[in-house]
Amino acid sequence: MVSETYTVTGMTCGHCAASVREEIEEIPGVQNVEVTVESGRVEVTSETPLDREVLARAITEAGYQLV
Amino acid sequence: MVSETYTVTGMTCGHCAASVREEIEEIPGVQNVEVTVESGRVEVTSETPLDREVLARAITEAGYQLV
Repeated sequence: MVSETYTVTGMTCGHCAASVREEIEEIPGVQNVEVTVESGRVEVTSETPLDREVLARAITEAGYQLV
Repeated sequence: MVSETYTVTGMTCGHCAASVREEIEEIPGVQNVEVTVESGRVEVTSETPLDREVLARAITEAGYQLV
């Protein structure tokens, strides 16, 4: 299991956090996603390291941006 | 048909606006709801004037506040 922390910009509320979490949870292999709106921190636990492009696309899909 | 404009605090994004709109739309007689996040303005069109208590409760239900 791998746990990595990323920064996502543009989230302003709990709904934003939920959108990001839901999109990332759809990536195959993802086990857990923790989002902190205030800091923009997103911690993703997955079976194997995530492809950053795939993660970035999921976050863009939710309407936010991976930095 | 009656159209009234209210101010709601706490909305920060489109998801917030959608939550408020959906809750107000459930009030019997409501025909249309327009929400502007930036200003907090909520314009409600209904068959008859809304009971302010009912409206306030719907907004609180969504997690925001009628001022």
